[in-house]
Amino acid sequence: MRKNNKFSPLFWPIQLKGNSIYILDETLLPHKVKYIKATNYQEACQAIKEMKTRAVGQVILVLYTFLLVVKQNKNSKNLSLILNKVAKAINATRPTLSFKFLTDMVLGWHKAKKPLDKSIIGFLEMLKASRMEQARKASKLVKDKDVILTHCNVSGSLPLLAEFAGKEGKKVSFFVTETRPYLQGARLTAWELKEAGFKVTIISDNMVAQVMKEKKISKVIVGSDNLAQNGDIANKIGTYQIAILAKHFKIPFYVLCPPASGARTGKDIKIEVRPDKELLTYQGLSLAPKGVKGYYPAFDVTDKDLITKHIYLEV
Amino acid sequence: MRKNNKFSPLFWPIQLKGNSIYILDETLLPHKVKYIKATNYQEACQAIKEMKTRAVGQVILVLYTFLLVVKQNKNSKNLSLILNKVAKAINATRPTLSFKFLTDMVLGWHKAKKPLDKSIIGFLEMLKASRMEQARKASKLVKDKDVILTHCNVSGSLPLLAEFAGKEGKKVSFFVTETRPYLQGARLTAWELKEAGFKVTIISDNMVAQVMKEKKISKVIVGSDNLAQNGDIANKIGTYQIAILAKHFKIPFYVLCPPASGARTGKDIKIEVRPDKELLTYQGLSLAPKGVKGYYPAFDVTDKDLITKHIYLEV
Repeated sequence: MRKNNKFSPLFWPIQLKGNSIYILDETLLPHKVKYIKATNYQEACQAIKEMKTRAVGQVILVLYTFLLVVKQNKNSKNLSLILNKVAKAINATRPTLSFKFLTDMVLGWHKAKKPLDKSIIGFLEMLKASRMEQARKASKLVKDKDVILTHCNVSGSLPLLAEFAGKEGKKVSFFVTETRPYLQGARLTAWELKEAGFKVTIISDNMVAQVMKEKKISKVIVGSDNLAQNGDIANKIGTYQIAILAKHFKIPFYVLCPPASGARTGKDIKIEVRPDKELLTYQGLSLAPKGVKGYYPAFDVTDKDLITKHIYLEV
Repeated sequence: MRKNNKFSPLFWPIQLKGNSIYILDETLLPHKVKYIKATNYQEACQAIKEMKTRAVGQVILVLYTFLLVVKQNKNSKNLSLILNKVAKAINATRPTLSFKFLTDMVLGWHKAKKPLDKSIIGFLEMLKASRMEQARKASKLVKDKDVILTHCNVSGSLPLLAEFAGKEGKKVSFFVTETRPYLQGARLTAWELKEAGFKVTIISDNMVAQVMKEKKISKVIVGSDNLAQNGDIANKIGTYQIAILAKHFKIPFYVLCPPASGARTGKDIKIEVRPDKELLTYQGLSLAPKGVKGYYPAFDVTDKDLITKHIYLEV
């Protein structure tokens, strides 16, 4: 059972206290739990650039950054100019303008003369409540003694799911793929589940079929980075083949989804190919012969037909 | 094309010169190409224990060890006693008595009063010729411009296959899974293919479905550690799920087989579960949170129905 009643730090990895934003440095996990302090928007943007936080942490950080700027410029006549500058800096942190929909949303509130602080706080409260509700809905799908296989990290949703299940007397445990090359499964998911007091076993990404064949897995639950309008999803590389294997072994495959994106189907989602250096080295150690190339698609698309059930985020 | 006309060092990783056996230290590859010298059976057994060589290298090493002992005790009246002692030492290097069939074979030759040196040399020549013939047969299955996905390491057979194909004007290239946790794909297969002048791209084990979906792969060719009498095979963990994925994407899946073992079907093959420490650390670095367990089945069984064609070793 869970040791304590607090959220996984990964569920809400960013805090705003006074005039400082505290950002959980996920790159140091699980060996160190350290928060980076940002006291202005430039420092916050730097943390995004250096990928100190990811997934929902980035969304929260963008909104707290605006909240901090609003606090710091309460009486400024130039608030509009300042907000535009901040939005531009945030948009520039990623080549793909991943945050434009968020910065546009905040600028839109300002344009519509809505009180920004209340709008941002309201949005974040709604986000938190929706994510809790999503984990609660997912907990309804599991049975007592279920062993859930997951991949990568779903930002604190799985410990919460297991806690909701526990409240209904259903004890669940987990297998997690290490999730090469960044090892988010081993570093983040195994860590948050262990910290929360749940049983978790790490396997490497090539052991999925074997543990399924051994009947060690009763359900697969993964997150997703992008939900297309037709129900296809994009998630961390490796998700797709787990879905195919789950179908082969007739194991239910559930997906915790974000709000639907503009993509009509998975075909509209461009797969980011990252530098092969990230695949071929680990903490400065070379894993491969000099001069050999790697190929590193960072995400893959899972067709809706492979998904037993989508667990939507209702916002 | 191949840079030079010699075998991959992994095809025949052990040499006997005078009274010394030279053992390619595969644990140092690809960063260092170093041979360990053994001048007696104890040193040879130590190299097996420390897993300096693997797969076919172990078979060759066992036979060269007997050949060395025969050389060193040519005029001894106690040769039978000595051979029995050596066989016992070799059998004791592995808890599963993996080499008993080899040591029994040599002791059998001696009992039948066959000249041991000629018998051993003859056996090794036959083994080399059979393995070359196996690679040649496999080369007949590939077409010009084929991209072959492989897993783990097939001890020099793939560069040879590609060379045979090249002689018939068929140019092939390779993708290789890194093969966690030991990274034999990245360390050994990528190395031997690159050294031989063939194009090879490394992916992590969770990218297989994605590269198949992108139509980057035209054939899968893997080795096997154990061939059951019904055609099921056991090979390095991860082989099984690649076979399932190949079937899903309708990609031919070929297996280079050893001689059939005593196993009737794959169910008779016991899967070795190794210490999770080997999965959860890399070169002394911890990959996972303290106290979290891993599960490390080192091999898996691929059902014969998933295999498009077995390429047998005719001995």
